[in-house]
Amino acid sequence: MKRSLGAIIATGMILVLAIALVAVVLYIKNQPPQARGVAPLVEIAAKEPDSSQWGINFPNQYSTLLLTKTNQVPTTYGGSMKISKLEQDPLLLVLFAGYGFSKEYNEDRGHANSLEDVRTIKRVNETTAGTCYSCKSSDNPTLWTEMGMAEFDKTLFSALGEDIHNPIGCSNCHEAGTMRLVVTNPALEEALVAQGKDWTTFTRQEMRTVVCANCHVEYYFAGEGKYLTFPWENGTGIESIVQYYQELGFKDWDHPDSGTPMIKMQHPEYELFTAGSTHYRAGVACADCHMPYTRDGAAKFSTHNVMSPLLNAQVACGACHTDVDYVVGRVATIQGQVHDTQIAAEEALVAAIDEIKKAAGTPEADAALIEEARSFHREAQMRWDFIAAENSMGFHNPEEALRILATATDLARQAQFLAAQVTSAAYEAQANR
Amino acid sequence: MKRSLGAIIATGMILVLAIALVAVVLYIKNQPPQARGVAPLVEIAAKEPDSSQWGINFPNQYSTLLLTKTNQVPTTYGGSMKISKLEQDPLLLVLFAGYGFSKEYNEDRGHANSLEDVRTIKRVNETTAGTCYSCKSSDNPTLWTEMGMAEFDKTLFSALGEDIHNPIGCSNCHEAGTMRLVVTNPALEEALVAQGKDWTTFTRQEMRTVVCANCHVEYYFAGEGKYLTFPWENGTGIESIVQYYQELGFKDWDHPDSGTPMIKMQHPEYELFTAGSTHYRAGVACADCHMPYTRDGAAKFSTHNVMSPLLNAQVACGACHTDVDYVVGRVATIQGQVHDTQIAAEEALVAAIDEIKKAAGTPEADAALIEEARSFHREAQMRWDFIAAENSMGFHNPEEALRILATATDLARQAQFLAAQVTSAAYEAQANR
Repeated sequence: MKRSLGAIIATGMILVLAIALVAVVLYIKNQPPQARGVAPLVEIAAKEPDSSQWGINFPNQYSTLLLTKTNQVPTTYGGSMKISKLEQDPLLLVLFAGYGFSKEYNEDRGHANSLEDVRTIKRVNETTAGTCYSCKSSDNPTLWTEMGMAEFDKTLFSALGEDIHNPIGCSNCHEAGTMRLVVTNPALEEALVAQGKDWTTFTRQEMRTVVCANCHVEYYFAGEGKYLTFPWENGTGIESIVQYYQELGFKDWDHPDSGTPMIKMQHPEYELFTAGSTHYRAGVACADCHMPYTRDGAAKFSTHNVMSPLLNAQVACGACHTDVDYVVGRVATIQGQVHDTQIAAEEALVAAIDEIKKAAGTPEADAALIEEARSFHREAQMRWDFIAAENSMGFHNPEEALRILATATDLARQAQFLAAQVTSAAYEAQANR
Repeated sequence: MKRSLGAIIATGMILVLAIALVAVVLYIKNQPPQARGVAPLVEIAAKEPDSSQWGINFPNQYSTLLLTKTNQVPTTYGGSMKISKLEQDPLLLVLFAGYGFSKEYNEDRGHANSLEDVRTIKRVNETTAGTCYSCKSSDNPTLWTEMGMAEFDKTLFSALGEDIHNPIGCSNCHEAGTMRLVVTNPALEEALVAQGKDWTTFTRQEMRTVVCANCHVEYYFAGEGKYLTFPWENGTGIESIVQYYQELGFKDWDHPDSGTPMIKMQHPEYELFTAGSTHYRAGVACADCHMPYTRDGAAKFSTHNVMSPLLNAQVACGACHTDVDYVVGRVATIQGQVHDTQIAAEEALVAAIDEIKKAAGTPEADAALIEEARSFHREAQMRWDFIAAENSMGFHNPEEALRILATATDLARQAQFLAAQVTSAAYEAQANR
């Protein structure tokens, strides 16, 4: 068989190319695996509770996390200094009468103080459930994996405390090794699933908001086992949450004056912010304002000194807004408007409680109508507390906050009116005999 | 006397320079005076009422002004189509019972329809004062100068109408010749002076808001002469305006059901927008959104087809905002929130009117307490109407609108409560005899 010179050259070239290809593949296979960011100095165990270990690889993030221990500075309506809300606003003593929040209720300090603060608050006693540790420690991801959340929650706070040694830390939001943001609180995972959502499909920017929902949400303790549950089955807006609690008939306590079965709302920062706020709609994440990118020499990193953006406005607001003075002024205006509207709602609630108490103490008062007045009171206070317990004095979503407070006041005044009607009808009936 | 050659040359040079200087001065003096913009084709008489004359010099501005005749397009909550507000929202029939606004109350059409619309509205009758022409015609600046505003206002509407031929036009905001923006309504001038303000010192950008206050403000007719007056002596915020009316004891009419002396608020766009809104604080003027800069070939001009920015969002919002879809979505959200809160306030007001009517019809009811309930009703409805009559469904200042509506609802419910207390106390007293 005859071969042309061209065919021989072509065969040779194919052979050389094949060898080169094999060499390249072998070379690539011998490279270390593609790492995100820098190669770690130490390997971090999965769910490692000790943040100082993670800090060896990420000294900037860790050292700024430590600053949350001492960043105790107040803002006009918040900040991270332990200030008694009950002393600032004595109406709260009436609204939370009969419940732990009338014993002690403080402005919260930074993440590094979480463990100390939960252990010294007067609301905790010998019957307190382990559930109260849910948002307080970087030991939780390990414990939730080992014990399961049901067991974690039904263990007494005092007993569970023996296994808890670290305040909030790296493991609460990060996966060791990849450092990617993860949902660690099983209650959040379950609440997302209940809405048909799979957080593993979320974008990184979305996760920079969702990880905050590991803790900064409204929740309740379901059943005897005090199972940590987010009331999100119908959605995360206030109307959906109210509907959830109404259908469930859940109560945190009975108000001793009005006899109303009450709900205490807890810091629903995630719910308010994501309810169509201008910043959320514009694609801003919690971390953009509360953990803004910062420089230390040549290193650019997201500060972990989480606090009010007002305490760091040049960096926190300045990343997007050119005129920071203007922005800070707007925040002051808006928070003032929300604050005044919030106080008006409180006064309406106090008036409602007073009138329901009178009605309930009136002989032959119409019990069904008193229940209706209590229902107004319950709905009003849920709405007011959704904003009052939320840590931004409405700024996370100003229009929504004001809308909700307007409704709260309206319902509280209707409770007051109805209760007074009950009282006078009862007296009238007596007089007519 | 000896002169050096150098001195002779120097003297010669000074002479040449002096001649050159004189020549330059003479040349400059012979130039036409520095004109702002292009030289006019025709001279416009001071306060010329006929906009078509101005249109010869400014064809783009004039032709877009003419578009306001036909730009009759609705938006979700406004726009420039004549839609009956009373049909849209029958609660208004209760709130304005006994007053002209329960006869006919429409969404307003564009500037070019002002004269036709004021002459056909059912609120006008044979006793209507000339004051009602104040914001309807480009003949006004001439008439105000010739007659004085006091005479203008006390002339009957029907008689004054013989001298009024043109709808709103150029002379309402511009000075002929210089084309600068001017305050033409004497009531605005007086209201600014009452606050110690001199509009001739305002910047051009400020004037691009202030000229709208020639008409887009709350006002009332003072005294027998129906003298057009803006209630701004204490300031232009709602609390200042309420305080002004309370001190004056002014009323537009008595509510036939509740007996409350009422105030009808009128389109306080200027007051709401300038009450610290985010756009006003950021330096945005009314004209920036409602008369955005537009191109026609090589010409760039401010469109005079004044209308809702929502009908022209790409241009109106797009001048500052890169993502217009996002912005339009935000407007929809905010207006929905304000609308719902506004309706809640209306329901509270209707309930208050009902309860006050009952109390007033109860024998031996405490007259002083009924007056107090009426005072709550009056204050509540002023606040609600400040937002309801304002033509932006709150968007000109969302937080302020919601704050005001929350207060309105609170006060209306207090009126309702107090009136019910009066009724039951009266029945109780009768029963105890």
